[in-house]
Amino acid sequence: MGGSSSTGRGKTKGSSPLAMTPVEEVDISAVRYKPPTLQAPHLTGFSLRAFVWLMESPLLGPLITSVLKSQNNMPQTLQQTVIPERPMYYPEYPPQDTEPGVVLVGEDRHPVERVHEALQYLPSYDPSVRWATEEKLPFLYWKIRDFAHAYSSGITTPSVVAEHVIAGVEEWNNKKPPMPMLIYFNADDLRRQAEASTKRFEQGNPMSILDGIFVAIKDDIDCFPYPTKGATTFFDQIHTVEKDAVCVARLRKCGVIFIGKANMHELGLGVTGNNPNYGTARNPHSVDRYTGGSSSGPAALVSSGLCSVAIGTDGGGSVRIPSALCGIVGFKTTYGRTDMTGVLCDSGTVEVASPLTSSVEDAMLVYFAIAGSRPMDKLTLRPSPLCVPNLLSPDNSNILGSVKIGKYTEWFHDVSDREISSTCEDALKLLCNTFGCQIEEIILPELEEMRTAHVVSIGSESFCDLNPHYKAGRRTEFTLDTRTSLALFGSFSSTDYVASQCIR
Amino acid sequence: MGGSSSTGRGKTKGSSPLAMTPVEEVDISAVRYKPPTLQAPHLTGFSLRAFVWLMESPLLGPLITSVLKSQNNMPQTLQQTVIPERPMYYPEYPPQDTEPGVVLVGEDRHPVERVHEALQYLPSYDPSVRWATEEKLPFLYWKIRDFAHAYSSGITTPSVVAEHVIAGVEEWNNKKPPMPMLIYFNADDLRRQAEASTKRFEQGNPMSILDGIFVAIKDDIDCFPYPTKGATTFFDQIHTVEKDAVCVARLRKCGVIFIGKANMHELGLGVTGNNPNYGTARNPHSVDRYTGGSSSGPAALVSSGLCSVAIGTDGGGSVRIPSALCGIVGFKTTYGRTDMTGVLCDSGTVEVASPLTSSVEDAMLVYFAIAGSRPMDKLTLRPSPLCVPNLLSPDNSNILGSVKIGKYTEWFHDVSDREISSTCEDALKLLCNTFGCQIEEIILPELEEMRTAHVVSIGSESFCDLNPHYKAGRRTEFTLDTRTSLALFGSFSSTDYVASQCIR
Repeated sequence: MGGSSSTGRGKTKGSSPLAMTPVEEVDISAVRYKPPTLQAPHLTGFSLRAFVWLMESPLLGPLITSVLKSQNNMPQTLQQTVIPERPMYYPEYPPQDTEPGVVLVGEDRHPVERVHEALQYLPSYDPSVRWATEEKLPFLYWKIRDFAHAYSSGITTPSVVAEHVIAGVEEWNNKKPPMPMLIYFNADDLRRQAEASTKRFEQGNPMSILDGIFVAIKDDIDCFPYPTKGATTFFDQIHTVEKDAVCVARLRKCGVIFIGKANMHELGLGVTGNNPNYGTARNPHSVDRYTGGSSSGPAALVSSGLCSVAIGTDGGGSVRIPSALCGIVGFKTTYGRTDMTGVLCDSGTVEVASPLTSSVEDAMLVYFAIAGSRPMDKLTLRPSPLCVPNLLSPDNSNILGSVKIGKYTEWFHDVSDREISSTCEDALKLLCNTFGCQIEEIILPELEEMRTAHVVSIGSESFCDLNPHYKAGRRTEFTLDTRTSLALFGSFSSTDYVASQCIR
Repeated sequence: MGGSSSTGRGKTKGSSPLAMTPVEEVDISAVRYKPPTLQAPHLTGFSLRAFVWLMESPLLGPLITSVLKSQNNMPQTLQQTVIPERPMYYPEYPPQDTEPGVVLVGEDRHPVERVHEALQYLPSYDPSVRWATEEKLPFLYWKIRDFAHAYSSGITTPSVVAEHVIAGVEEWNNKKPPMPMLIYFNADDLRRQAEASTKRFEQGNPMSILDGIFVAIKDDIDCFPYPTKGATTFFDQIHTVEKDAVCVARLRKCGVIFIGKANMHELGLGVTGNNPNYGTARNPHSVDRYTGGSSSGPAALVSSGLCSVAIGTDGGGSVRIPSALCGIVGFKTTYGRTDMTGVLCDSGTVEVASPLTSSVEDAMLVYFAIAGSRPMDKLTLRPSPLCVPNLLSPDNSNILGSVKIGKYTEWFHDVSDREISSTCEDALKLLCNTFGCQIEEIILPELEEMRTAHVVSIGSESFCDLNPHYKAGRRTEFTLDTRTSLALFGSFSSTDYVASQCIR
């Protein structure tokens, strides 16, 4: 879709409505980048309380949200614009041809088998080198293959590592101010899991390459018998956990050790990770900075080295943002490829369960453990088959060199601090010089409209789940931050929602 | 889903929200029929005008719609209820096994081929018998096969029939009060089309069994070069017709004669067919009664015998209701099976283009001419393949006897006049006694919730298309009836919409 213009489809009596150009007819060269207009009052303490109260009031609320939305150019734009595309409710892609060097992995197979197969496509790697040299190596995250080697060869055991994890969690909790990466943590349970894993290694019978790997689960994903609160103070009273979420159950079958429920932005409704209920899991690389969110705890845990893997959820950057800010790998999986049963927001059209790890190969291994669509999605979404690059195939000898990177330079440089974009430029240069990646200048039209459509979609879908509890008197138990978001989401009309799906 | 009850999923501080029972756990025997609660003010003239003006006012409007919705138990119910099912945005069904006696017809073939194939599966019929007897037969609609016989054997020609149609249209228009079945009618164009068809028969070269069949098109479907207004006064200024809608183009390829654009409830937003812009197409069997709507003109035209076929649109009964009220056949096709390109409401999740005819076999022939999904629907909806019962197959020797008819007796009898339900009972008895159909008592839980979810869905999707024009000053050009509906639709929230898809 292209820039807004008059329809010119006939004379009109009133003013002519705005109309988007059909996607095939957009003149990309005429698109001009417009920095987003963002205006919001800066409020804290009493003034914030008063503002939230006003936003929620049936009489003044609609007026205030309307002024705020209009100042930020949303979503009046959608309501008043003729959008030529039909709505698309789920993100769907036409089926694609198989690429050379890519292998199909049957998604109905046991997670252990899938992980085992994926492992065979990784470049060869000898973990023993790490321990062979006398000199002290610079800090390097242990990869899953490092742990597997250390456990198998008796260098260490899951029980020994567990004690380090327990001490580490305590250390971060005792920081001033405290830095609670976990909302639910049970040292005894952790020891029990580690002991079982240690025994399996003693018997020479680990469950998979993931056996004894320490994994954190974001607090909006069920991990039995821990409570699921979505980092609220009360959601465990509404939502009882009777079994693992499907992605958690799959990891458990591979022998991982769950270290607890990771902190997050309350209900995932924000991208800082700031959490007044439990304290804020800050960035381990620089503890006076945010991790980003909403998967703040998962990113902090992996980034600090306390665990190798965390499972987060991502509907609008909730895995990608904190991973980027904490310098780890966040992999947003394709919508519908992971089964969302047992995740708090299991009914939206944007949210997926996704791994956070310290290396790309770990992300690949974990993905093959948790992947697999839910039965209903197979009927209605028919996601394309699960596949994995065989990195040992000759087709992939220069896999990074074949990558083309699209770059919208004007957008790329629209950041608050020049240091950010120049660091990113350096990263791009490194990719090009080392591997021969190609940079291609691209233009993304209608970023503002897409941003609005995204907020309307994710907001409406989250609020739909929360609304019955919100209406039944739970409103004031949410944080002020969440209440502001919910008041905004509650102001979206059904036509905003349908129009957003047309933008999609 | 079952009756509303408390969740019982843990203690709550506020009042506990309502929760629906998951669909697998509903106790059907405990469901009690609740007659719908419908309350609305009876208004005409000035009081109606004042009411619409108030409903549209930014300050009082929300209050009035809120009172009306609450009196009618919608959609507060949705917002305050925990719905255990995930949203389903498009009506989709799991693939089914092929039934015996049912033949697949490739939907990508030419419409003429498909109609020709469907024709071969009809029971044998000798149209010449109609003309062979000396005695006067009781009134019987001519079927498509009757017209084909009459044209081929020289009993009459399309041009001769065209003169009868032109005279008939005039006669109905001159009724007092007038009864305008067509909004756009051009006698000269009709004569030209009939002449071309007559020539084809003279040359022994008709295009298909549908050649020379008179067809009316509802005014919300493009039929080039006629304007499309959706029975508004102005929509042709917004929407220019550049070619036939896909379903119309397919009929044109079969040689049909288009008699014009049929009257309807304005924009399809009502089920009476009452149209203050053009007058109301009343019921030909009883001209002081409504046809039902929104396809009022199509039903009146077929019911009066003026044409054999009309194409209407149905999103909430708009073909089925007027067909039932006028005693003809209305066939709502499966969602996604007809290509909606060129239909005003082409972007909803409920609306389909569907035939109205005087016999079931004609509906089948026309369906096979217009059927065929649009390319995008094939990717995202993957509708089940197009199929037709082979009525000559031994599997179908007792096809009606194998039909089980579900009957929710309490609902069946919840009508304003006992005469209606006893007539319907008689029809059921006839089916059972003549063909051996089985009646089975069924219960449909949550009819009220489904009704609400339907109004929210169809209303939001219609209003999304109209909103830009409405906001750009066209509001007062709609009828008061439409304005009332649009004010209601505009009051639905995005969570109402998402919750409605959960009910779906």
